[in-house]
Amino acid sequence: MADVRDPLDVLCINTIRALAIDTIQKPKSGHPGLPLGAAPMAYVVWQRHLRHDPSEPRWPDRDRFVLSAGHGSSLLYGLLHLTGYDLSMDDLKSFRQWNSRTPGHPEFGQTAGVEATTGPLGQGCANAVGMAMAERSLAHRFNRPGHDIVDHFTFALLGDGDMMEGISSEAASLAGHLGLGKLVYLYDSNDISLDGPTSLAFTEDVSRRFEAFGWQVLRVEKGDTDVEGIDAAIAQAKADLTRPTLIVVRTTIGFGSPNKQGKSACHGSPLGPDEIALVKKGFGLDPSLSFHVSDEARGHFAAGVARARSAHAAWDARMKAYAAEYPELAREFRSAMNGELPAGWDRDVPVFAPGDGEATRQSGGKVLNAIAKGLPTLLGGDADLSASTQTAVKDGGNFDGRTGAGRNIRFGVREHAMAAIANGLAYHGGIRPYVSTFFCFADYMRPSIRLAALSHLPTLYVFTHDSVAVGEDGPTHEPVEHLMSLRCMPGLRVIRPCDANETAAAWRYAIEQTNHPVALVLTRQKVPTFDRAKYGPASGVTRGAYVLAEASSSPKAIIIATGSEVQLAIGAREQLEKDGIPTRVVSMPCWEEFTAQPAEYRDAVLPPGVRARVSVEAGVTFGWRTWIGDAGVAVGIDRFGASAPEDVLMAQFGMTVARVVEAVHASLHSTAS
Amino acid sequence: MADVRDPLDVLCINTIRALAIDTIQKPKSGHPGLPLGAAPMAYVVWQRHLRHDPSEPRWPDRDRFVLSAGHGSSLLYGLLHLTGYDLSMDDLKSFRQWNSRTPGHPEFGQTAGVEATTGPLGQGCANAVGMAMAERSLAHRFNRPGHDIVDHFTFALLGDGDMMEGISSEAASLAGHLGLGKLVYLYDSNDISLDGPTSLAFTEDVSRRFEAFGWQVLRVEKGDTDVEGIDAAIAQAKADLTRPTLIVVRTTIGFGSPNKQGKSACHGSPLGPDEIALVKKGFGLDPSLSFHVSDEARGHFAAGVARARSAHAAWDARMKAYAAEYPELAREFRSAMNGELPAGWDRDVPVFAPGDGEATRQSGGKVLNAIAKGLPTLLGGDADLSASTQTAVKDGGNFDGRTGAGRNIRFGVREHAMAAIANGLAYHGGIRPYVSTFFCFADYMRPSIRLAALSHLPTLYVFTHDSVAVGEDGPTHEPVEHLMSLRCMPGLRVIRPCDANETAAAWRYAIEQTNHPVALVLTRQKVPTFDRAKYGPASGVTRGAYVLAEASSSPKAIIIATGSEVQLAIGAREQLEKDGIPTRVVSMPCWEEFTAQPAEYRDAVLPPGVRARVSVEAGVTFGWRTWIGDAGVAVGIDRFGASAPEDVLMAQFGMTVARVVEAVHASLHSTAS
Repeated sequence: MADVRDPLDVLCINTIRALAIDTIQKPKSGHPGLPLGAAPMAYVVWQRHLRHDPSEPRWPDRDRFVLSAGHGSSLLYGLLHLTGYDLSMDDLKSFRQWNSRTPGHPEFGQTAGVEATTGPLGQGCANAVGMAMAERSLAHRFNRPGHDIVDHFTFALLGDGDMMEGISSEAASLAGHLGLGKLVYLYDSNDISLDGPTSLAFTEDVSRRFEAFGWQVLRVEKGDTDVEGIDAAIAQAKADLTRPTLIVVRTTIGFGSPNKQGKSACHGSPLGPDEIALVKKGFGLDPSLSFHVSDEARGHFAAGVARARSAHAAWDARMKAYAAEYPELAREFRSAMNGELPAGWDRDVPVFAPGDGEATRQSGGKVLNAIAKGLPTLLGGDADLSASTQTAVKDGGNFDGRTGAGRNIRFGVREHAMAAIANGLAYHGGIRPYVSTFFCFADYMRPSIRLAALSHLPTLYVFTHDSVAVGEDGPTHEPVEHLMSLRCMPGLRVIRPCDANETAAAWRYAIEQTNHPVALVLTRQKVPTFDRAKYGPASGVTRGAYVLAEASSSPKAIIIATGSEVQLAIGAREQLEKDGIPTRVVSMPCWEEFTAQPAEYRDAVLPPGVRARVSVEAGVTFGWRTWIGDAGVAVGIDRFGASAPEDVLMAQFGMTVARVVEAVHASLHSTAS
Repeated sequence: MADVRDPLDVLCINTIRALAIDTIQKPKSGHPGLPLGAAPMAYVVWQRHLRHDPSEPRWPDRDRFVLSAGHGSSLLYGLLHLTGYDLSMDDLKSFRQWNSRTPGHPEFGQTAGVEATTGPLGQGCANAVGMAMAERSLAHRFNRPGHDIVDHFTFALLGDGDMMEGISSEAASLAGHLGLGKLVYLYDSNDISLDGPTSLAFTEDVSRRFEAFGWQVLRVEKGDTDVEGIDAAIAQAKADLTRPTLIVVRTTIGFGSPNKQGKSACHGSPLGPDEIALVKKGFGLDPSLSFHVSDEARGHFAAGVARARSAHAAWDARMKAYAAEYPELAREFRSAMNGELPAGWDRDVPVFAPGDGEATRQSGGKVLNAIAKGLPTLLGGDADLSASTQTAVKDGGNFDGRTGAGRNIRFGVREHAMAAIANGLAYHGGIRPYVSTFFCFADYMRPSIRLAALSHLPTLYVFTHDSVAVGEDGPTHEPVEHLMSLRCMPGLRVIRPCDANETAAAWRYAIEQTNHPVALVLTRQKVPTFDRAKYGPASGVTRGAYVLAEASSSPKAIIIATGSEVQLAIGAREQLEKDGIPTRVVSMPCWEEFTAQPAEYRDAVLPPGVRARVSVEAGVTFGWRTWIGDAGVAVGIDRFGASAPEDVLMAQFGMTVARVVEAVHASLHSTAS
């Protein structure tokens, strides 16, 4: 290890390594390859650069560190332990056990100091881009001349797998476009992935690709040992504030393991006790000791933490001066970072007059703009479709990655990165993120939506063009299975409002969520605005489902509908009532919220005794049996859509009042038998 | 149009343009911007390079042309019409109408000459990579010295949106790695996307990125007019057989539209009659004529077709000589291109002896290898997880993009491109593609899975690690909602076999599908192999669900289970029978196939009179009401997983015999009330 000068650095790095392999050996499960190779770069970041405070993990202006290669979790847990976060040696010994703070991959919210849930490759890279954007946006909003209270770096550590994923290309291309100068990627380039050498599948010139994206690209050839080289590269990265920086750190996977280093064998399997002894011996550590940290190492880490925390103290002083000069802004800053909603945030949300109505995407655009006035933390954008999704904040300007100005993020046609960047904005705090595209393309974003749900992030998706009523663009652009496929996902709230006022209520509901992502699902086509003097109030949205139109007397049948099909239910009810069948119409914009209601409420809306039930939704009927029961009839579209004018499609697919009426009769017949 | 020499070329290009804008104007719906700008490059490909035969659209050795920018469909339809495919002027006049051959975006199977369903951006780029790989693989298998019966190019036309999508980066990186020298991308680079100039979001150096991927990159600066420049670039692309080529063709969106060219306004909206008249006038065409093709233009297109078809005639001659020398190979070639299964293709599929069993991923690996012996068209791979998914063909070698040798495609960690490339292999014909990764990462592939379903492609997905039994890797790697979210998708068949013999039956079933994608969902963990002498035969898989274990007498309860949870159902049945409750166990590996069975069969398996029913599946219970009815109880996991050893998780999440027994009692109680 000729390149390393300070034996304390060597000791600390090898302590991280030993701790990682011990952590993995105990449950005989984990990924030792990355920690052994990437320990030096992680050490240099944490020991010499990262400004953080283990005693206050949520200090707003801390530097962010994202382990995108989440399978290297034992490395991160080791660093958290060694720098004094609330993670004991016993926690490390509970690695990958039920209810531990050290799950197999890092989970946001589970462990203090873990900034993002990672593991699915490429996601962390994009999360980091979102964090760096949040920093810029907040700096623009809050910093004042001589008062930089938002001013931090975002580091991400990534591996070959991250680099192969398309999402990381999308995110890096956008980061380069935006000139996110305070974003630093450390690329653990070890030429090995799970199945063998990366030369099997991955021979592109990554540096050149990132140069094409507009990044500064630096290189450290001896990343296993060259502490000073890594340090210099990070310093150079931080010095260029006009471009994000990629540091390609060449390492050896499983470094120090005499029989396994440089081989895929050590990527995802524990080394075994014999090999661990050899590794420790090679590092000059006592092979008989496990989970051991020498006092010398502890002392050196403590010095690093003191350096890191001094930044916090300096910030406290800056914040004090800031609060003295700008008390109102200081209050707003703390409120934003705490995720609080300012008083009156929704005061401009319109009430829509009954009538012919408009597309819910249009109503949604109006509501969004009303909320944007009262909620300065609202920051979002679209995947090159704002003209269609109507989600731009008017006069908000386009987000500028250098200054942080602008409220509309132009993500380009990069749906997947968009969703993961939104998660990054949410992880960072201080921002209430939303992103939008056509509902059909929710599929492109699904892995990131899942992580938002898993991590309890209040990421908001505005999906428009929500059914075959898209019309001429045809089946590639027409969602049919998307409502159900998203309703399947634990934690996510899917809301499909039926008219303008339900849309306003849905937006309100969405903004009030603090630990669930929400998908608003809006129409392309016009829908009537119901007369709420005549029908149930739109605030029923907050309970997931409610009686929109009561039966003239004790209901014999219930029609349950969502979104643009609620008007069909209303039309059918009218006819059924004329035919002497008292019929209730239930609007059910959000299944998840209705499921969460007390049984009494659910039974009041859907009385168990009324078994004649029909669901109406322009999508697959899969799942509706939950609400309509054995005697129910589901009216829906169990096939892909087609290309034709909207009204032709709705008729061809049986989305008509007549079919709903017929279905109610069929269900009544079924209950009689 | 100074650069263009031959007035006939000019006339033909402008004829394509006029036809495209007329096609869009009629329904007042479509995207005129791309056809106007990209007509010259499309014309040069089709008129001078593409070897195809409009009278035999499925000629096996034709060059492939994929319009990845599928919103420019009117351009493709115009070309198909003008070159004599079965697409009349009336078809063009039915653009975007119900049941027409000219849907809003190109749909495979709907229109002769359309090679791929496109529209969702980036997909076509990856489909083309798959086609180019199919060409290499078939060339390796069938060509013999002096007999090149497989030898064609694959062209893709793409736009800025395609270039922004991560999937196209993944696909291009792999194509460069593989050295697919017969793949040519024509990039319609016009700096405009739907929401405005690409400079809003997309300022990377695309050429440099593709150089980083190992591509030859060429450039045509005046793509609106420079026919000869485009021609020369294509010739140069074809001349380099060692690398794929990107031709960056700089164009003007909406070229020729005096008021709209160069603006996003013409991206996705019809020009309107006044502007169309101006365009035609500018092109020297008669503005009073719509859907008009002059005899002169028709004649010139016919000459191009004659050139193209002469290649077919030459191939017929080559094929004849080949068949004379290699009659058996010639027969195999035709059979492969027709998607036929060779006799005895499944003769080596093992029958597994009852016993303690093994993971279904292991059984699956054995079955795959047995089938690979009898089915040389089987070609697939994995996203850097073959060691885990067990899907490598032993001694099959890694696929080599230059020679076409090798049966295992190493896709790298590029799940999305993998799925779209598999579709490309299927589109091409002659290949039976499969791809594999962890089930959780099906989410990364979802947009391509959807296109396989929509396009009726028999793409096969092998998903392993199918539940929380993944264990220590934790919730990021544990599918819970994936079964249901894929069952929602029209056309897809999801099969989750319960043991080794059901796995064999599932593989057989999958290979026999010709127009549906199939997802095989396999365990990471060991499951017992049931004694089929005692239980129902595994061939029941082909009917979707079947009686695995009959009740001792007329059943009072039915337990329905899938995959690894079938053993819990069997265990519960044993106990219930002891307690005097005659209980039937139904194994239900494939919902879609069971739904498609005649009612009598369904009622025989799930007699309507037996209302006490329990479902058992280690995933969300969403949807199970369909089969268990109002009185049923669903045993499942309605939350994300966790990181812990498998047995701990299964117990914590209530995946136990005791809970199933309890659920049966609850359901019986419910039927009694």
